[in-house]
Amino acid sequence: MKKSIGAGTITFPTPTWVVGTYDDARKPNVMTIAWGGVCCSKPPCVNVCLRKATYTYDNIVNRKAFSVSVPSEAHVKAADYFGIASGRDTDKFADTGLTPVESDLVDAPYVGEFPVVLECRLLHTLEIDLHTLFVGEIVDVKADEDVLDENGKLDIRKAKPFSFDPAGRGYHAIGESIGQAFSIGKPA
Amino acid sequence: MKKSIGAGTITFPTPTWVVGTYDDARKPNVMTIAWGGVCCSKPPCVNVCLRKATYTYDNIVNRKAFSVSVPSEAHVKAADYFGIASGRDTDKFADTGLTPVESDLVDAPYVGEFPVVLECRLLHTLEIDLHTLFVGEIVDVKADEDVLDENGKLDIRKAKPFSFDPAGRGYHAIGESIGQAFSIGKPA
Repeated sequence: MKKSIGAGTITFPTPTWVVGTYDDARKPNVMTIAWGGVCCSKPPCVNVCLRKATYTYDNIVNRKAFSVSVPSEAHVKAADYFGIASGRDTDKFADTGLTPVESDLVDAPYVGEFPVVLECRLLHTLEIDLHTLFVGEIVDVKADEDVLDENGKLDIRKAKPFSFDPAGRGYHAIGESIGQAFSIGKPA
Repeated sequence: MKKSIGAGTITFPTPTWVVGTYDDARKPNVMTIAWGGVCCSKPPCVNVCLRKATYTYDNIVNRKAFSVSVPSEAHVKAADYFGIASGRDTDKFADTGLTPVESDLVDAPYVGEFPVVLECRLLHTLEIDLHTLFVGEIVDVKADEDVLDENGKLDIRKAKPFSFDPAGRGYHAIGESIGQAFSIGKPA
């Protein structure tokens, strides 16, 4: 018998992703989100969900583009800061010493020091209520060479992304593999 | 200098969630997804993304409801099976011996043995392309008592959800906490 713990955004895991955008003056900005995910395989798309009040909201609407930079465990302090401060008040790249890199494909910057980045072109905007869901087509994924394996494939153990737990509000490392998908559950 | 690894759904972490629905004959069905996430805080919402070809697609369209059951590490084989088999061909609950529990709030079943479940009422449908994004309002979260802490709060260390890595196609346990959100990155 399960116990009701009430309606809320209490589920896990959720990602810790940093959304990069330019404002009207082309100042690069970043904000951290946990509300988002992959949402389509063809074309490859991610969605990021933001409140209208964020500085990033207008940037995405105006530039029709954003990036998603995936931080490593080593960047947890900066990623958390990017979710606390607002680009309306400060330059978060300058504050942290991290490097805004201009995408060569979309009108958005990404975080040079984070190991994996997605460059996204705005495809859809869905106003839900407090949050707006932006769907971006992933036009390219770029990664640091040192997080690729010997076959050039992204290696999660090297990239060391982390997840967010909305219940305990903690960031959690990715743990060990417990099985391969489309394989471990195959009927014998 | 980052290296392009091409446009693709290569990012992480993504969740491993099991979507529960009823078909026209009220047969309970489940399918596993990694394309989804939390998408709004007020009202609390999650989105799940499916191909039109799935059995679950019509079920959500017709019933205007779904559940999300969050498996524990112990359920990795069943969760993977739920992503391999189709409810069109088989009864996945019967195949695994798991229990479909009727939600008292929405027209959808959930997995009795999984520790955390969200009961969702369909709010929005966004056709992207290969995948369709369904936004559901979370009308309740229910959890087993043994995954709650002494204050009745959901404890990720007890629930042991796991994530999916689209690059390596592995399921990964949740690792240790590396910091508290809205805290570890606060300027001193």
